Amino acid sequence: MISAGQIKHIRSLQQGKFRKEHGLFIAEGPRIVEELPGSAIEVIAVYGLADWVTGNSGKFKAMRAEVNEISQKELGRISNMVTPNQVLAVCRIPQMQVSDIPPGSSLLALDGIRDPGNMGTIIRTADWFGFQNIICSSDCVDIYNPKVIQSTMGSFARVKVFYTDLPAYLSAADQAVYAMVMDGENVHEANPGKGIYVIGNEAGGIRPEVLQHATQKLSIPAHGRAESLNAAVAAGIVMAFVSNKF
Amino acid sequence: MISAGQIKHIRSLQQGKFRKEHGLFIAEGPRIVEELPGSAIEVIAVYGLADWVTGNSGKFKAMRAEVNEISQKELGRISNMVTPNQVLAVCRIPQMQVSDIPPGSSLLALDGIRDPGNMGTIIRTADWFGFQNIICSSDCVDIYNPKVIQSTMGSFARVKVFYTDLPAYLSAADQAVYAMVMDGENVHEANPGKGIYVIGNEAGGIRPEVLQHATQKLSIPAHGRAESLNAAVAAGIVMAFVSNKF
Repeated sequence: MISAGQIKHIRSLQQGKFRKEHGLFIAEGPRIVEELPGSAIEVIAVYGLADWVTGNSGKFKAMRAEVNEISQKELGRISNMVTPNQVLAVCRIPQMQVSDIPPGSSLLALDGIRDPGNMGTIIRTADWFGFQNIICSSDCVDIYNPKVIQSTMGSFARVKVFYTDLPAYLSAADQAVYAMVMDGENVHEANPGKGIYVIGNEAGGIRPEVLQHATQKLSIPAHGRAESLNAAVAAGIVMAFVSNKF
Repeated sequence: MISAGQIKHIRSLQQGKFRKEHGLFIAEGPRIVEELPGSAIEVIAVYGLADWVTGNSGKFKAMRAEVNEISQKELGRISNMVTPNQVLAVCRIPQMQVSDIPPGSSLLALDGIRDPGNMGTIIRTADWFGFQNIICSSDCVDIYNPKVIQSTMGSFARVKVFYTDLPAYLSAADQAVYAMVMDGENVHEANPGKGIYVIGNEAGGIRPEVLQHATQKLSIPAHGRAESLNAAVAAGIVMAFVSNKF
């Protein structure tokens, strides 16, 4: 059972202002929710169908999460998905400081990434290549947006994403800043090392106030005629290149 | 002006069975539509707002396309986009034979790619890296699906995509077949050459009947804990790697 008040509260978390007000977000589906116990994410409550609750309540109760059994119809009312899938979790947004990032870590920095699918895919790819920290400009899409959470395929629980004043962060950085642009040096020839790799907005690229802090401008060489690469693909190629070197 | 019959006809092209029946598809927005003159794509008709028609009718009339001036409201009725953008083109689906592919070309082969956004991004990325031909298993999403067309960002007009019986094609291939899998050799160490690079379905990977034709199984090495890479990101990393070698 779930009350009308709970339904309203959970649905409100689809909107950024309510996520901020309550400090909570939602994650859905067994594949993602079942990765949460043992991760750094605090689960406040899970709302699952009977079968799911039977198989999973123990580990969620062990982490002091409230376990609620609900009907398929009730799940449909709180879900953000086209096809609601067994369970929805309400989780606490972790409090993180940019100063927590270990010095000298290779980092991805994102300037104005707006598409939820791109952001989710970048987080998933960072998790694959062992990039544990991502710095975002303040206007990047919120990673606790349900569409981002779902497209990370669970990687949001492992990769730390920090929102900050990106130009200020880069100006104070103690390592090389590599900006991925259309007219930079060939990344294979320049052969850059550890540092901060900056990926720009889907349509406009990296803004001048961010670009001015670049140590070096790099490009993924084109051999065809497309105007640009998708931001998540570009980030993936850069991380594949960098992670293979160390 | 546009008639009710034309509206119905154009809207029907959002569905695969009508695209197949008429041999036509739609492309939208100035960025994509304006790339069509001079490409291999035959434009049958364009439906544009007054300002767009004033600036662009000449080159479309020169390619014998019918140019129709319509209102914003009419554009809204034929558009597949949330925010209709100035112009919609009706184009002919090109007739292509797998036998047209030049022998010895490095190729991408896709086994069961279902997500329109992934397919569009793969085509766009292939265009960037100069992969001019893509072989798809018959059950891959239709590239003339409007969502695929839009996410190619115009690259559908340059990259040729062939649908075929993929196991049969690979069994007759005259070059190496590299299958991208989770448990293959490290692609950087194996250092493969020209050939056919196979990318599998988003959830299930490459099917056994396709995999059995692989000369070599390759993997993009993981340094973190994500379960898998997004299919478009994996394809991008592979093409970046291969295109940089030749």
